[in-house]
Amino acid sequence: MEKINLQDKLSLFSEHWTPKIVEELNDYQIKLVKIQGEFVWHDHADTDELFLVIEGSMEIEFEDHTMSLEAGEMCVVPKGVRHKPRAENECKLMLIEPRGVVNTGDAEGELTAENDVWI
Amino acid sequence: MEKINLQDKLSLFSEHWTPKIVEELNDYQIKLVKIQGEFVWHDHADTDELFLVIEGSMEIEFEDHTMSLEAGEMCVVPKGVRHKPRAENECKLMLIEPRGVVNTGDAEGELTAENDVWI
Repeated sequence: MEKINLQDKLSLFSEHWTPKIVEELNDYQIKLVKIQGEFVWHDHADTDELFLVIEGSMEIEFEDHTMSLEAGEMCVVPKGVRHKPRAENECKLMLIEPRGVVNTGDAEGELTAENDVWI
Repeated sequence: MEKINLQDKLSLFSEHWTPKIVEELNDYQIKLVKIQGEFVWHDHADTDELFLVIEGSMEIEFEDHTMSLEAGEMCVVPKGVRHKPRAENECKLMLIEPRGVVNTGDAEGELTAENDVWI
């Protein structure tokens, strides 16, 4: 059992779009990620995904609208819903989803990150 | 699908030790709670529990040590581990745990809160 300081953990890496696991809650993983630029359109067929903005701001594009999220705001993207995260300036996020979820969901490619990296 | 501003949701209630659900992630619930004073010793036999401090500071007493948590810090209390949260001054937290978990775990009593209250 460990106390986790989110800013301390975020200071340990600088690359974008590569979620790092900081803790597990049963079979769920708590991940931190820094993002900047545009991600790919994708969905996760089997699971919802939680986005909580820690610092900065981001948008999540959906097929019929775009949601803006600032620090202290969160959203759960339901399973099967296509979405494209993006951030003009660097944004620091917490993600929560079950163990084993791949960042690009059904859209494996250049932005697919190694999937079980802890910091 | 809804954007959730944590401070806006926290402004909707003032009572202590009564977690409010703000969102679900599959069969997990994201809850906000305000605490002040001492809770009861308890455990949750079947599930881990995530504490993330949003504002203020708190301690979690364990049988062999005490952990202090400030804003931006989190801890996952493993299932079956006895713990007693406390806060000298009001502290605002996010809790994440599976749907249906009772706040006082095995120690039902005065501080047991109604279990499915959304805000």
